[in-house]
Amino acid sequence: MDNNIVIKIGVVGATGYTGVELLRLLAMHPSAKVLVITSRTHAGSRVDLLFPSLRGHYDHHFTAPNSEQLNNCDVIFFATPPGVAQESVPGFLNKGIKIIDLSADFRIRDSALWKKWYSKTHVCPELLNKAVYGLPEINRKKIKNATLIACPGCYPTSVLLGFKPLLESGLVKPSDLIANVASGISGAGREASVDNLFAETSDSFKAYSVEGHKHLPEIEQGLEDIAGGPIKLTFIPHLLPIIRGIHSTLYATLKIKGADVQKIYEECYKDEPFVDVLPAGSHPQTRSVKGTNICRISVFCPNDGDRVVVLVVEDNLVKGASGQAIQNMNILFGLPEGTALDKLALLP
Amino acid sequence: MDNNIVIKIGVVGATGYTGVELLRLLAMHPSAKVLVITSRTHAGSRVDLLFPSLRGHYDHHFTAPNSEQLNNCDVIFFATPPGVAQESVPGFLNKGIKIIDLSADFRIRDSALWKKWYSKTHVCPELLNKAVYGLPEINRKKIKNATLIACPGCYPTSVLLGFKPLLESGLVKPSDLIANVASGISGAGREASVDNLFAETSDSFKAYSVEGHKHLPEIEQGLEDIAGGPIKLTFIPHLLPIIRGIHSTLYATLKIKGADVQKIYEECYKDEPFVDVLPAGSHPQTRSVKGTNICRISVFCPNDGDRVVVLVVEDNLVKGASGQAIQNMNILFGLPEGTALDKLALLP
Amino acid sequence: MDNNIVIKIGVVGATGYTGVELLRLLAMHPSAKVLVITSRTHAGSRVDLLFPSLRGHYDHHFTAPNSEQLNNCDVIFFATPPGVAQESVPGFLNKGIKIIDLSADFRIRDSALWKKWYSKTHVCPELLNKAVYGLPEINRKKIKNATLIACPGCYPTSVLLGFKPLLESGLVKPSDLIANVASGISGAGREASVDNLFAETSDSFKAYSVEGHKHLPEIEQGLEDIAGGPIKLTFIPHLLPIIRGIHSTLYATLKIKGADVQKIYEECYKDEPFVDVLPAGSHPQTRSVKGTNICRISVFCPNDGDRVVVLVVEDNLVKGASGQAIQNMNILFGLPEGTALDKLALLP
Amino acid sequence: MDNNIVIKIGVVGATGYTGVELLRLLAMHPSAKVLVITSRTHAGSRVDLLFPSLRGHYDHHFTAPNSEQLNNCDVIFFATPPGVAQESVPGFLNKGIKIIDLSADFRIRDSALWKKWYSKTHVCPELLNKAVYGLPEINRKKIKNATLIACPGCYPTSVLLGFKPLLESGLVKPSDLIANVASGISGAGREASVDNLFAETSDSFKAYSVEGHKHLPEIEQGLEDIAGGPIKLTFIPHLLPIIRGIHSTLYATLKIKGADVQKIYEECYKDEPFVDVLPAGSHPQTRSVKGTNICRISVFCPNDGDRVVVLVVEDNLVKGASGQAIQNMNILFGLPEGTALDKLALLP
Repeated sequence: MDNNIVIKIGVVGATGYTGVELLRLLAMHPSAKVLVITSRTHAGSRVDLLFPSLRGHYDHHFTAPNSEQLNNCDVIFFATPPGVAQESVPGFLNKGIKIIDLSADFRIRDSALWKKWYSKTHVCPELLNKAVYGLPEINRKKIKNATLIACPGCYPTSVLLGFKPLLESGLVKPSDLIANVASGISGAGREASVDNLFAETSDSFKAYSVEGHKHLPEIEQGLEDIAGGPIKLTFIPHLLPIIRGIHSTLYATLKIKGADVQKIYEECYKDEPFVDVLPAGSHPQTRSVKGTNICRISVFCPNDGDRVVVLVVEDNLVKGASGQAIQNMNILFGLPEGTALDKLALLP
Repeated sequence: MDNNIVIKIGVVGATGYTGVELLRLLAMHPSAKVLVITSRTHAGSRVDLLFPSLRGHYDHHFTAPNSEQLNNCDVIFFATPPGVAQESVPGFLNKGIKIIDLSADFRIRDSALWKKWYSKTHVCPELLNKAVYGLPEINRKKIKNATLIACPGCYPTSVLLGFKPLLESGLVKPSDLIANVASGISGAGREASVDNLFAETSDSFKAYSVEGHKHLPEIEQGLEDIAGGPIKLTFIPHLLPIIRGIHSTLYATLKIKGADVQKIYEECYKDEPFVDVLPAGSHPQTRSVKGTNICRISVFCPNDGDRVVVLVVEDNLVKGASGQAIQNMNILFGLPEGTALDKLALLP
Repeated sequence: MDNNIVIKIGVVGATGYTGVELLRLLAMHPSAKVLVITSRTHAGSRVDLLFPSLRGHYDHHFTAPNSEQLNNCDVIFFATPPGVAQESVPGFLNKGIKIIDLSADFRIRDSALWKKWYSKTHVCPELLNKAVYGLPEINRKKIKNATLIACPGCYPTSVLLGFKPLLESGLVKPSDLIANVASGISGAGREASVDNLFAETSDSFKAYSVEGHKHLPEIEQGLEDIAGGPIKLTFIPHLLPIIRGIHSTLYATLKIKGADVQKIYEECYKDEPFVDVLPAGSHPQTRSVKGTNICRISVFCPNDGDRVVVLVVEDNLVKGASGQAIQNMNILFGLPEGTALDKLALLP
Repeated sequence: MDNNIVIKIGVVGATGYTGVELLRLLAMHPSAKVLVITSRTHAGSRVDLLFPSLRGHYDHHFTAPNSEQLNNCDVIFFATPPGVAQESVPGFLNKGIKIIDLSADFRIRDSALWKKWYSKTHVCPELLNKAVYGLPEINRKKIKNATLIACPGCYPTSVLLGFKPLLESGLVKPSDLIANVASGISGAGREASVDNLFAETSDSFKAYSVEGHKHLPEIEQGLEDIAGGPIKLTFIPHLLPIIRGIHSTLYATLKIKGADVQKIYEECYKDEPFVDVLPAGSHPQTRSVKGTNICRISVFCPNDGDRVVVLVVEDNLVKGASGQAIQNMNILFGLPEGTALDKLALLP
């Protein structure tokens, strides 16, 4: 590894929460040189005018998404709504520029499935199989050699990391999985909306999209990859009145009672820098990972029965999005995987 | 008073927070019969589909704003954005229908001033002097005989009730008033906006509109009416990460030290059903009035100096809007002033 | 029913959240006359000094718990920690005074089980079978003739009402039930504690007591009563950064696919004044029941599979505690069941 | 400066919020080597068991406060309640160990005044004049040579930095100052208390200690130092339902209208690394400094009148406490002032 490496970076679509979180983390990355930051809606205005938290760290102006500067980048991050990245990714790849896409465009390998959930025909389905699903705990080697990385969604990251040890070990019935998950409101993005107003969401709680959430096919694909066969999942998302954080409560059924699940989890993740299996009996809190790339996990078999309950917390904007994107960049460019990602959570 | 009186009511523009709050309170009013509820955007759909909290109390559908049913009402409430009520109010008045306007259209008597702050020429300036400013603690007698009532804004209600005893008694310098006020986010309305998203406002605090807030001219007019002469006010609003509630911290300077301000406040409000002067040394909390029409006030002279500090809390959607509107209706129709407004605050 | 009935009431232990909520609701009850309000810690001080929201509605002082006035009551509510009510309940019952206990003292019929979970030997186990479990939707007739009513816990109310139609109809496997529940922090009571500080709980989320929560045996007993046989439940509580509200996400497995669960729920609760089955596809929010005695329920079979998902919301301090206690009182004294409980939720 | 310098550090009283914040920041400090972390109540248990956010960064156990290891430190931070540090500070100073005290023990030079506000006789009043008040923007040179640094309180930091340019320039009347301040609840510490429970403080707002707050004498002393003469201040604190953050709204009266206050502020702070004067017309938000050592300031003269309004935000636990303590340590040990303090705010 070369300590003096400089990675020239473009960020496309930086006015949303994953965009500003990328900029926050890249500002603390010793090898990152952000060349260009684009925005359709804010082109021409200073980035730190929109995000005062960046004052003193960025003197960029937003440029239009077709900025020539993007062609001078080593890597381009897309932090765009579904359907946007696929329009320009093929062109950049042809120029030898690496792509790390935080959107949903390249996560699902089956283009028909993509169309079903995103109501649009994919414009470059031939890339779906070339894209590497950027979950390092599963795909680290492929990521190292990727040209196009599809960063996992926030819910999928949490659910896949939570179920991985159980499915890999073959201890549980793959046909009987439940993911009861709850996300902070930043997960809904930074679009003007009535539903996500403070006065609509604060001091309240609800489930949503019970009949089908867009992350479901991505989670199913990921679980089947891990299990090496079909799975059956009930996935129920909820909206939490917190800014950042996802908490998953996962339920599975042991084939045979009495497995030492604590040991299985510790063993599975013992070399992972960003997965922290808590001591037996702990209950992870979302705030313990606020602002960090860490995923904290606890596992229980209540009353020594055959039901396994797994608790997983992550920061949806870091390990669930921008932090994982940088973890992928670090792997891709041969940097220490934790570069810029070693900061501690804000607590309280 | 006739206990069996039935008041036929129309509510124009009921998809915002003051609208739904009106409906909540009217559902508990024994004399209120809501004939018609209008909405430009939701005409045709059930009211309780938009607001599930109303289930079991309303089976109305929203109608278009030009519904014929409005002509059968005894009174129409307008809970509309600025500039809307003035378009149709003259017509309804001509038909003998009373108007209680919760918007800003008839609060300011000077049409030039109205135009300056609302960037629009008023369409019926001749009504501005006929409208009665609906602050019962100041205008109760005029309200009784009004045909058009302009309900005060949320900030003005709080600031005027807080300064009233000091200005009426002539104890303080009218040229040296400060109102440092903070409002819950419901005060910003139920419009889709980035600025009022949960993820933008929760766990944060800021001042806003320091260079001039739309409620300033209304407050100045009201203070001058009370003082009987010119006043000078610095008015600084802040945005609180709470749903409901306004807290005003008012500063004034005594002409002569040593006044018994506690007694002056208790005396001023001793017969008022909705103004509660707290025991000396108390600090009112916004939650103590959540959901109620009550305004709670404390007054201090720290260190027995010449600075008076007044603390005022109200629920911006009740005493600051819809509750006060119903208080006005009760006065107008000769009902006990507290009808439907005698419920207790939710605490915790 | 006699409209002029006056019920003389004592409230024992009124400094907690269920206590103040009882007082809030009783103040709006036309037949309730609160004679005495006790508190060990605050005896002698005014009730409305501790709870300013009660100003103007109560001029009581807290009395010591052994107040003679309790003997003049028709009914005494206990809003005390576990183990307190059982000390004095037998004496009051002997004097013919009715008891409505909001604590856990008389909810579990098996005294050994009570001891296991509350680490104390029950002092009047002979009353455990005489106490009526005060869930009107299940026990309305028994409540009418009860002398001692054990009000259900907040979680049990929600879980029992949610599973009732499925278990009664025999449609689901009773051995495969999951209750993933989340409660607002008022459920933890008004005791000084580090864990429930704002700075510890706000902007965060966690599961707790995964290995066994005190409400588990009460829920299991209730579910078995409904099912008429053994059940197996995994019960995972979570702590929500909201003040009031419980949201249960319940999972069960259909014996045979294709049941019209929507219809079964609507049928089961069609005559219940305080259970509101939402239209198919709805997601109940806790705020839609804030301050009310209503329980709102939705039911889904995602992807038409064999998994049933039930969503239940209630206000833990109302339907989950003090409102249900008053509902029980209304039944007990032959009043309309909804007296004092017909107010609408605060929204927003 | 020596890049390889290692500073051996003790932290006394690390179970509160300023303690854990010190540990968070020190973990990111390349020259800091934390030798010992003490706690009376948690001695013997792992630090990261109490604060899971520290997992992976500390393997220390809390030791008793009289740990011998403290004598091997270069510098000891005290994050203790009032009255504790003064007991042992003289002994450590005699051994040549530097002290950075985050408590109130050495902030006020007048021991009689200290006694008045803290109800205790100071045990080492002779040190009060030797202690350097650790506000770098005022005392940077003295800090460099100090042995005992008294870190400013959170409110004083905000109010002093906000008024400094106005008082130094002599533009405003020093006898007419108002500080209307609001603090997040972490400012009240991590003690078990009813008043700071989530259910007591969330969704509410109040002023407190209007008749006199413990930070008042410290602020008055600091303002008089800056003004070079007597001042008169009204200081009204409020409690905000946010975790971190202080927002001050300061009012002063210009001696002569028309000063270019924007320029005066920019000039005053142009070389300060941690004071950021915003562009004219901006409204700072507390979240823009969450987790950082930065203080953001805006200044207004509404309507070009003689009233100046200054808005100041800081993170009470960073610039208002532990960050400033590390800034002081950096100055004291000749390190770049921003070491470990250059991270960006979490937004959202």
